Amino acid sequence: MPRKELEELQSKRLRAVVKKVYENNAFYRKKLDDMGLKPGDIKGIEDIRKLPFTEKTDFKDNYPYGLLSVPRNEIVRMHASSGTTGKPTVVFYTKNDIKTWAKMFARCLEMAGVRKDDVFQVTPGYGLFTGGLGFHYGGEELGCMVIPMGPGDTKKQIDMMRDFGTTVLGGTVTYSLRLAEVCKEIGIDPKSLGLRVGIFGAEHWSNGMKDKIEGIFGFEAFDIYGMTEMFGPGIGLDCPRHEGIHIWEDHFIIEILDPKGEPCAEGERGEVVLTTLTKEGIPLLRYKTHDLSRMLGYCSCGRTHRIIDRVSGRTDDMVIVRGVNVFPGQIESVLMKYPQVGPEWYAYAYRNEFGSMDHLQVKVEATGTTKELLQIREPMIKELTSTLMGLKPELVFVPTGTLPRQEKKTKRLIDQRK
Amino acid sequence: MPRKELEELQSKRLRAVVKKVYENNAFYRKKLDDMGLKPGDIKGIEDIRKLPFTEKTDFKDNYPYGLLSVPRNEIVRMHASSGTTGKPTVVFYTKNDIKTWAKMFARCLEMAGVRKDDVFQVTPGYGLFTGGLGFHYGGEELGCMVIPMGPGDTKKQIDMMRDFGTTVLGGTVTYSLRLAEVCKEIGIDPKSLGLRVGIFGAEHWSNGMKDKIEGIFGFEAFDIYGMTEMFGPGIGLDCPRHEGIHIWEDHFIIEILDPKGEPCAEGERGEVVLTTLTKEGIPLLRYKTHDLSRMLGYCSCGRTHRIIDRVSGRTDDMVIVRGVNVFPGQIESVLMKYPQVGPEWYAYAYRNEFGSMDHLQVKVEATGTTKELLQIREPMIKELTSTLMGLKPELVFVPTGTLPRQEKKTKRLIDQRK
Repeated sequence: MPRKELEELQSKRLRAVVKKVYENNAFYRKKLDDMGLKPGDIKGIEDIRKLPFTEKTDFKDNYPYGLLSVPRNEIVRMHASSGTTGKPTVVFYTKNDIKTWAKMFARCLEMAGVRKDDVFQVTPGYGLFTGGLGFHYGGEELGCMVIPMGPGDTKKQIDMMRDFGTTVLGGTVTYSLRLAEVCKEIGIDPKSLGLRVGIFGAEHWSNGMKDKIEGIFGFEAFDIYGMTEMFGPGIGLDCPRHEGIHIWEDHFIIEILDPKGEPCAEGERGEVVLTTLTKEGIPLLRYKTHDLSRMLGYCSCGRTHRIIDRVSGRTDDMVIVRGVNVFPGQIESVLMKYPQVGPEWYAYAYRNEFGSMDHLQVKVEATGTTKELLQIREPMIKELTSTLMGLKPELVFVPTGTLPRQEKKTKRLIDQRK
Repeated sequence: MPRKELEELQSKRLRAVVKKVYENNAFYRKKLDDMGLKPGDIKGIEDIRKLPFTEKTDFKDNYPYGLLSVPRNEIVRMHASSGTTGKPTVVFYTKNDIKTWAKMFARCLEMAGVRKDDVFQVTPGYGLFTGGLGFHYGGEELGCMVIPMGPGDTKKQIDMMRDFGTTVLGGTVTYSLRLAEVCKEIGIDPKSLGLRVGIFGAEHWSNGMKDKIEGIFGFEAFDIYGMTEMFGPGIGLDCPRHEGIHIWEDHFIIEILDPKGEPCAEGERGEVVLTTLTKEGIPLLRYKTHDLSRMLGYCSCGRTHRIIDRVSGRTDDMVIVRGVNVFPGQIESVLMKYPQVGPEWYAYAYRNEFGSMDHLQVKVEATGTTKELLQIREPMIKELTSTLMGLKPELVFVPTGTLPRQEKKTKRLIDQRK
């Protein structure tokens, strides 16, 4: 779709969504009334900045049904995010929402080269979490064969891959690493599984990590973007050029904003803010995702959906050590350059025993002779220090297999000061 | 649909399915050729007995893709039964199969009085097991709101019920009993949850058990029938008259056969044998389900889909004690008549220490004074003995909460002699 046409479509849909939430949702009506805004004031995407933000806390404050913009009996499904504290973040879908999401996810699969002949093993959890059913409906919509495994039972997963000729693996990077380890335990080369495409989401991972797992499995890895509040996974993916994640701009308006809420220049890192254009159950205006990324403009593939950089962290994942904002993506991008280390690592922010000084310790699994490791040690610390604006971390090499493994999302940056 | 029209539809579909498997499946072509049968020999349902049987072992012998009747790339999903021994029983679905199954399940829900306004909590496991996704797609097809929980985390399930106003519970009887126990632990009356309809499958349960759980929750309970080889759950359900399970005869031809393969008279118990009429991925001719039931003719509701009795056991669930065939359903139907006992019970077949004599011990949870229990003891044993063709079991009352609980299917008849 030519860019001009796409933007006209966005404008048309934005007008409709503003009208819809104003007329059907008390929460948004009040927000707009408080600002003195009428739906007619929004003529198109150029007016997006007039609109109010939506915050994660608005979900909790309006629990359970306060964010609905359709009658409750139009809803056919709910999902919920893990909700580590208090009530989970709950979202609702109409029949059309389910179709829209499935089509959007199928578009991602298509872009990654997945076809009807493929066998797609779905390893994210089914149920309330959006991962499993998101991947599942996307695969069925595309028409490839879905193996609905869900997480865990890794040996059985490998049996299934071999028995049914799995070609596409969907899940988290963390889980692909777990698969690789179990392959090693039972003495098979992950490459022999014949996987062709890996589609990973729900975690922040670097290009170096991508190269590592592509090397382990011999597949092409893609980075899928999404979150519970925006359907779930599938709102964007990198294309085979791997220059950035295409966001499906016919379904969303994307902004990258600085902490003051002002737009970042192209290439400048900020918070991803999304407005839904086609969601019926819970349309959202300018939702502050807490994800950090930057606009990269247009991809050389020629698609008119713009690309953003791989998500480098979350505003709430960041830890501040001696005044420096530290994001997991910054550390990982350095570590993964070195073939001797990874892919498992953790970083710990801690305070010394007198409580007077903060430190950052980076622990990473490494293989190689002592001499080899000594050789890479100083350059690694130097590069980390430079990436972290002068904050010099401690670097600890530990043997492979000694760091904790998780089958779900791994939190790699741990603040031990609280 | 008038009965005559239904049978004409069955005949038309049967001709098509025989032609289809003959032309597209080497396993069936060989079977039919070996019998000297051509598709044209099957004119209608009156010729069903000319067709060969399909056995559970045919799935294992033709693993993985040998029972397919469409090209592999027409398949969009696989499911597998738990497969306690060796390779699991694996089945495959086309896009149309998924639609057919969802519509059939939605028809069950409709018959049970479920409507768009309802909130349907799905507790069977998602993933390879047909339970979760079967219930899930059925609910979405009907248009009620599905809460995709899957099994476990029972306290959270209860929170969800209260927060989102669940009105329909789908799962196993066993799991509903677990829910009731957790309600008791946290001090709430299961009736206060406001559940209106319970839809239970995958286990054999008696009318007495139905009365008990209806009494606990204050809902109306329905018995859903199905199995992995026939899509999954949803191929039949009892209607609000509760006279028997309506089998969807536009999708299946049902036979009840004796151990020699001869048709049983109406009312006579035998093995359920099913022929699929609308399945595309894996159509099956005369599949021997191992489930035991009997034809009950027509229901007073006026539907033309005939009814069968609640499944009383499986040919392979039965244990033979002193020459008597013992099925779980027989024992449960006696036990559940007594308000002092149940719903948890187990029966054990064992051999005495000299190996010369087989015994059946029935353990059931009971509440009441010693006097009360002494009063019901003898009549219960008498009735059990009569039901079991003269086999007199030992009867042991144990305190509530002492028998093992399972969150999945419960096997209540345990043979300890092997």
